[in-house]
Amino acid sequence: MRPPSSPSERGLFDGVLGRGPVAAEVADRAWLQAMLDVEAGLARAQARAGLLPAEHADAIAAACVAERFDAAAIGAEAAQTGNPVVPLVAALTGAVEGDAAGQVHRGATSQDILDSAAMLIAHRALGPLLDDLDGAARAAAALAEHHRDTVMAGRTLLQQALPVTFGLKAAEWLAGLDEVVARLADVRLHRLAVQLGGAAGTLASLSEAGPEVLANLADELGLAEPPLAWHTIRVRPAELAGALGAACGVVAKIGRDVTLMAQTEVAEVSEGVPGRGGSSTLPHKRNPVAAVSAIAAAMRAPGLVAELLGAMAHEHERAAGPWHAEWRPFAALLEATGSAAAWLRDCLEHLDVDAERMRANLELTQGALMAERVTTALVPALGRHAAHELVQDAARAAFAADRPLAEVLAEHEDVREHLDAGALERLLDPAGYLGATGELIDRALRAHADRTGQPT
Amino acid sequence: MRPPSSPSERGLFDGVLGRGPVAAEVADRAWLQAMLDVEAGLARAQARAGLLPAEHADAIAAACVAERFDAAAIGAEAAQTGNPVVPLVAALTGAVEGDAAGQVHRGATSQDILDSAAMLIAHRALGPLLDDLDGAARAAAALAEHHRDTVMAGRTLLQQALPVTFGLKAAEWLAGLDEVVARLADVRLHRLAVQLGGAAGTLASLSEAGPEVLANLADELGLAEPPLAWHTIRVRPAELAGALGAACGVVAKIGRDVTLMAQTEVAEVSEGVPGRGGSSTLPHKRNPVAAVSAIAAAMRAPGLVAELLGAMAHEHERAAGPWHAEWRPFAALLEATGSAAAWLRDCLEHLDVDAERMRANLELTQGALMAERVTTALVPALGRHAAHELVQDAARAAFAADRPLAEVLAEHEDVREHLDAGALERLLDPAGYLGATGELIDRALRAHADRTGQPT
Amino acid sequence: MRPPSSPSERGLFDGVLGRGPVAAEVADRAWLQAMLDVEAGLARAQARAGLLPAEHADAIAAACVAERFDAAAIGAEAAQTGNPVVPLVAALTGAVEGDAAGQVHRGATSQDILDSAAMLIAHRALGPLLDDLDGAARAAAALAEHHRDTVMAGRTLLQQALPVTFGLKAAEWLAGLDEVVARLADVRLHRLAVQLGGAAGTLASLSEAGPEVLANLADELGLAEPPLAWHTIRVRPAELAGALGAACGVVAKIGRDVTLMAQTEVAEVSEGVPGRGGSSTLPHKRNPVAAVSAIAAAMRAPGLVAELLGAMAHEHERAAGPWHAEWRPFAALLEATGSAAAWLRDCLEHLDVDAERMRANLELTQGALMAERVTTALVPALGRHAAHELVQDAARAAFAADRPLAEVLAEHEDVREHLDAGALERLLDPAGYLGATGELIDRALRAHADRTGQPT
Amino acid sequence: MRPPSSPSERGLFDGVLGRGPVAAEVADRAWLQAMLDVEAGLARAQARAGLLPAEHADAIAAACVAERFDAAAIGAEAAQTGNPVVPLVAALTGAVEGDAAGQVHRGATSQDILDSAAMLIAHRALGPLLDDLDGAARAAAALAEHHRDTVMAGRTLLQQALPVTFGLKAAEWLAGLDEVVARLADVRLHRLAVQLGGAAGTLASLSEAGPEVLANLADELGLAEPPLAWHTIRVRPAELAGALGAACGVVAKIGRDVTLMAQTEVAEVSEGVPGRGGSSTLPHKRNPVAAVSAIAAAMRAPGLVAELLGAMAHEHERAAGPWHAEWRPFAALLEATGSAAAWLRDCLEHLDVDAERMRANLELTQGALMAERVTTALVPALGRHAAHELVQDAARAAFAADRPLAEVLAEHEDVREHLDAGALERLLDPAGYLGATGELIDRALRAHADRTGQPT
Repeated sequence: MRPPSSPSERGLFDGVLGRGPVAAEVADRAWLQAMLDVEAGLARAQARAGLLPAEHADAIAAACVAERFDAAAIGAEAAQTGNPVVPLVAALTGAVEGDAAGQVHRGATSQDILDSAAMLIAHRALGPLLDDLDGAARAAAALAEHHRDTVMAGRTLLQQALPVTFGLKAAEWLAGLDEVVARLADVRLHRLAVQLGGAAGTLASLSEAGPEVLANLADELGLAEPPLAWHTIRVRPAELAGALGAACGVVAKIGRDVTLMAQTEVAEVSEGVPGRGGSSTLPHKRNPVAAVSAIAAAMRAPGLVAELLGAMAHEHERAAGPWHAEWRPFAALLEATGSAAAWLRDCLEHLDVDAERMRANLELTQGALMAERVTTALVPALGRHAAHELVQDAARAAFAADRPLAEVLAEHEDVREHLDAGALERLLDPAGYLGATGELIDRALRAHADRTGQPT
Repeated sequence: MRPPSSPSERGLFDGVLGRGPVAAEVADRAWLQAMLDVEAGLARAQARAGLLPAEHADAIAAACVAERFDAAAIGAEAAQTGNPVVPLVAALTGAVEGDAAGQVHRGATSQDILDSAAMLIAHRALGPLLDDLDGAARAAAALAEHHRDTVMAGRTLLQQALPVTFGLKAAEWLAGLDEVVARLADVRLHRLAVQLGGAAGTLASLSEAGPEVLANLADELGLAEPPLAWHTIRVRPAELAGALGAACGVVAKIGRDVTLMAQTEVAEVSEGVPGRGGSSTLPHKRNPVAAVSAIAAAMRAPGLVAELLGAMAHEHERAAGPWHAEWRPFAALLEATGSAAAWLRDCLEHLDVDAERMRANLELTQGALMAERVTTALVPALGRHAAHELVQDAARAAFAADRPLAEVLAEHEDVREHLDAGALERLLDPAGYLGATGELIDRALRAHADRTGQPT
Repeated sequence: MRPPSSPSERGLFDGVLGRGPVAAEVADRAWLQAMLDVEAGLARAQARAGLLPAEHADAIAAACVAERFDAAAIGAEAAQTGNPVVPLVAALTGAVEGDAAGQVHRGATSQDILDSAAMLIAHRALGPLLDDLDGAARAAAALAEHHRDTVMAGRTLLQQALPVTFGLKAAEWLAGLDEVVARLADVRLHRLAVQLGGAAGTLASLSEAGPEVLANLADELGLAEPPLAWHTIRVRPAELAGALGAACGVVAKIGRDVTLMAQTEVAEVSEGVPGRGGSSTLPHKRNPVAAVSAIAAAMRAPGLVAELLGAMAHEHERAAGPWHAEWRPFAALLEATGSAAAWLRDCLEHLDVDAERMRANLELTQGALMAERVTTALVPALGRHAAHELVQDAARAAFAADRPLAEVLAEHEDVREHLDAGALERLLDPAGYLGATGELIDRALRAHADRTGQPT
Repeated sequence: MRPPSSPSERGLFDGVLGRGPVAAEVADRAWLQAMLDVEAGLARAQARAGLLPAEHADAIAAACVAERFDAAAIGAEAAQTGNPVVPLVAALTGAVEGDAAGQVHRGATSQDILDSAAMLIAHRALGPLLDDLDGAARAAAALAEHHRDTVMAGRTLLQQALPVTFGLKAAEWLAGLDEVVARLADVRLHRLAVQLGGAAGTLASLSEAGPEVLANLADELGLAEPPLAWHTIRVRPAELAGALGAACGVVAKIGRDVTLMAQTEVAEVSEGVPGRGGSSTLPHKRNPVAAVSAIAAAMRAPGLVAELLGAMAHEHERAAGPWHAEWRPFAALLEATGSAAAWLRDCLEHLDVDAERMRANLELTQGALMAERVTTALVPALGRHAAHELVQDAARAAFAADRPLAEVLAEHEDVREHLDAGALERLLDPAGYLGATGELIDRALRAHADRTGQPT
């Protein structure tokens, strides 16, 4: 064994694109450790099945410490055989004391080790990843609750359309986060399975003990036990990829909303981490670094998911290319989703919300968003057609003259006849035209509380 | 209303790429009908909530028949507003008799109709799609059972490696199909939800009745009821996409295996549909049309899933591009998966398996695949190192001289001393070196039976 | 032959997603005609090479009229052989009069016809597609020229940063459009090549005349002549895909800018097609339908390009899946790019620009964008550090008090000493801090004029 | 400045997936150096324009040495501002001696540095990448020449179809490699351009000197000079991506062919690097490690290209996410293509070709591939229909009885009458039914010689 590689595996773009705890869980050291954990687990699983003495398993497990191996050297030697397991097993065999050395990797093939390690990596990475998504969900829940009645413009096709509340927007974010957390947690619990089949999936070199060793290994590693080898049936990584891709999509949506609300001309929110994203000479400028970085990481997902789905057609009992093609996107997708989640949580936990500006922006259109409601109120008195014509004319006149719709309507005899000043004011109050907004927020909060088992 | 569009919506590439019943479920006529079903359901849902008379709902529902509308004309008019719902609502309003016309589309926005229609489309398409995947799974189960002991070469990196049985290969196919069917069925049952929010998700124009109408509409359409509008939170389409993508990956894997086994030089399987894929002057040639077409359809998935995941960042309360960007890939992904499933079922239901050729191919390497087993048998007598050296030398000598390993081994004194002719023959019999193959097949068959509730 | 299919091939989503002339160029009828044109060209090419009488070629060519064939029926029959050429050739043979019938499709294989037809389709579709991109470029050039000095806020990360002119923004759009037009025109001219190889690429059944027929066919069809068959070397479709993908990216960028500038709170541009995108009761709302639809179409490209690139690994002399997998995305990518181009041209040709609002938005930050420039002006007098501190303090004070930077600066003694009121005013005039904006616009306009051969 | 990061940046999967010289060109150290080269070039470009003293430029350039900077630390600090240029500029400023420190990064924005560095990275990486593709092309040319007449089965849909020569297959590989090399060389020469615009693309802080500095910088860095800033018009990276994607597609095609020909049952080629891919106990097994690894790397391209194309919609003057989203896939795509090219070259330079086995495989079908030719020869005597029927019957009979077609035909009176034994033998000789194979190979070799300027 050569000296270990440098402890720092952090790189030039990692602060922006590899933020949070997930990056370390998919770094080379973590892969090394995961592969070693599988080798150790395999030895223990065989010891439990009576295939080798417990002391041998212990001796093997004792050597399975990533720091004792040189990832760069193993990586270089991997070119001879096409995967890093072969040189790792050689190095591990050299590191094990006594007779146990001969029992290293027994009954397994390289793919067993690497596939099981990948599942371990995913299991471990999903821990902090789900923490960060959950943190973002909690922050969204808090925003939903706090801003339940903070009126703002709802926008369709980036045009103001109808009033909503910021709480409703946050509740929709929350619902999305809850959906992806639920799915990822489900994948983590049920779909990350150990892989053990030997060279061709038959467990031939373990003879009758194969299935028992398989069950023991699943137990040792805390992974699910599959009915049979999935070496060339890649539904498990594909489902993980799909779930991560959906999570990234939700992050991208929320990040997009934040960057749009943070625009200089909109200024409804800003990111409130002191010293970040500022400019010494442009004090109005607070770059939404967290939202931007979350978006950037999340944008990787469609292509990376496509890579993993595009590598599912494994030939026969081991693929001639597609298997190796999974390694990079598998780690990259976990890293990207982890970074997206970490940045989003940071963003939402530090979001400064300007409720006054939200209200002010809503008033930019001087009541136009409420025109529909006035029409509805006039229908009983004027009939649908006349009511519609009247309000439409008033809305156009108000827009053309840059005047409040209330003023123009109040000048109209038919309106005055049926709606007194107070009634008109109430009708034109956006806070009164929110439909089921409050109830919908509550539904999202309840669903969140149900999922997390905590009252909001 | 103009005259209806031509009944045939089948095209030049549909026989190959749009095979099976799913294509019709995602054709324009099906979309029209689904949108009309949502409008009818909406009217009924409001009638049940007391918002309009039942007769009005009935009158609206009576007009909601796709054949009465002209998809091409509606499509053309959609360019004015950016979606086909606006002209459809205008046409439908014109088609409804009496006062009920004024109640068409009440409280809804275009996206409510189109999103709910998309979910209906998915729900309907998944019916036959799951049938075909299930049919393929049944065919795989039958192959697994019938060929439980049909020995063949297991191949890694396209090189013969260890014996397996064709039953094991089919059992792995089966396990993959079962996994994707289970996931798709779950998505169909739980994740396809109605969409109703009005222009900004608040259900404003339905005032307090909004949530009740939402629940009623879900009930009318047989879709799940979401906690709140998911107009810009696209986890549901993304999860559907991920599940379809994984299904296509399994199809591609099986199709790839079939085309490889069907090679002229391998000739272990062929597709047995009379008259298909044949060549009048090349009688040896039976093109695996079904497998090839299944692969071709399945290969669309990674890109189409990427399209849908890449369109998740919807701005604010309605996206300025990403929403519209979903329409084509949503339908195309269902069509592609449906075609892939239909072809695969066809392929597996008509697969001619040549067990003799499988055995003959396995013997091409004249026992080399069993070398590992002989080594293991000699270890007790000779020690690990000597046993390994002996067998390795014999294997090389046999390969170099193009002789059976058995012959070369039998000439070796150390072998003869410890293994008599019968023992050597047994050791070199591939059928005796299958490890847990039978049990693993049974596990896959049991899991299949558990899922489908049917004994295999 | 059955009766022809319906003349209308337009669908429900085509008004939005299949706009412009390209859609018709990739419809089934166009594919039928292109395949027939290849068959006709092949007959003529062989007649020119003396392989068959000119009358036979004429008889074949006379039958090659798409309207005489039934795309749906051919598509259905294609399932027997795996591609539509086989039934088309049968139908064509039946349609040709006399002895010439026996000469139909001579020496060619199905893939020759379909690949050459695909190149014809691309060649034809790129005509109007380039027209639309060119039209968009001309509109951008006009905007660049007209708004050379229309000052507006430059925005980084969606925050106002420095003044630019709308002309510069339009000039950058122009440069992007010119780049993609140049590349697509190059691909069209040099890279769209005829395909002819016979079943295995050897031109075996044409014996010595093969290369001459190949050259003649290229000439007949107006396509490039390749050195040899590219049946399984898919660089040509891949290069086309890459060029279309880049074009879509430029469209998406411009569309994104337009939708952002069209936001209610920004209101710097709007789409000016009367009656489109409007709302009767929301007169302020002018949905940017063209920009939104352009974005939506353009967003398909990454996934579709991935499909085509992912289908490049063709096995041996004809692919078992990847070839068939190209057909749908090939047409879809042309359609999407065509629709994106048509919508973008429409958008830019009808863009209403509000120069006053641009100026007003720039003033939202009350001079902050010019702070950097004042610093530079004070450096000679105060030194870099002191100048920077002074201006930074002033900027912060102005922002905190919501006052113009000019006012705050003017109160500062060190400023008044070195800059009189006029100088300060000039320094704070955004129109004076545009660097090389005018020259850069001119460079883009000149490059455009050079490319198109027309003065701008 | 902290101590430099470890010299080894090689990782666990790099031996397989990051092979060859390109990986180092896209590693963190190379990025650091490229950014520093841009800063140095910028200083020199300004000195040449008279904006700062030459000594200052020299002092800045002297500090621009990657080894003096800590990539990990800079990466970590980048999280504050959203990109690594800000902390790098701070570190560089600290490293420059004297007054020159104040001139570091003058007039530039972070994106100018990173975009120009990316172009430098691409320029540098494409050097060895093109070398490796060229090496692969040379190897393919040698195979094409050497095996001009090595007859083998041409295979369509993985079924034997018609004879070809291995030289023709290699010539098609060659043509594909030549195409992608030509395109990549063109992109390298003409499309990799310097980026300089300042914060908003106006070059404001360089006043009139902006364009001159731009030209000087292009000259200093050996990159093209763009008409104006392309900070948000991403055609250049997109074109590079498209060209790399096409290159990967060709690699994948060749790799696929090699793995198919290397199958145990086909055994027409094997990789001949001693000690690689072997198995001590399976001497027949020579894993095609190079081809498999080439395929694996190449399979990344579709997803990575999709990432880059999907990130083209940059908002306004700097994107809020899409820009940052480019960094990882930009480097990853270069690395993947570089690794694919290096492995492919290795594979083709060491390919052992078994011409005898090719011939033997062709004879598996006992003449059936030649049936078409016999038909043609009998047409003049028997007429088309009768000739076709006769040969078809004979082919079926031969196949059914597992007899050579020649034997069966020779028993037929009509055949004997018109074809003597010698004529029949000649007709059934695959080497005589190769059409224009030789000429087509020569065309490909000539095109290759034309491109490279070397006689083959």
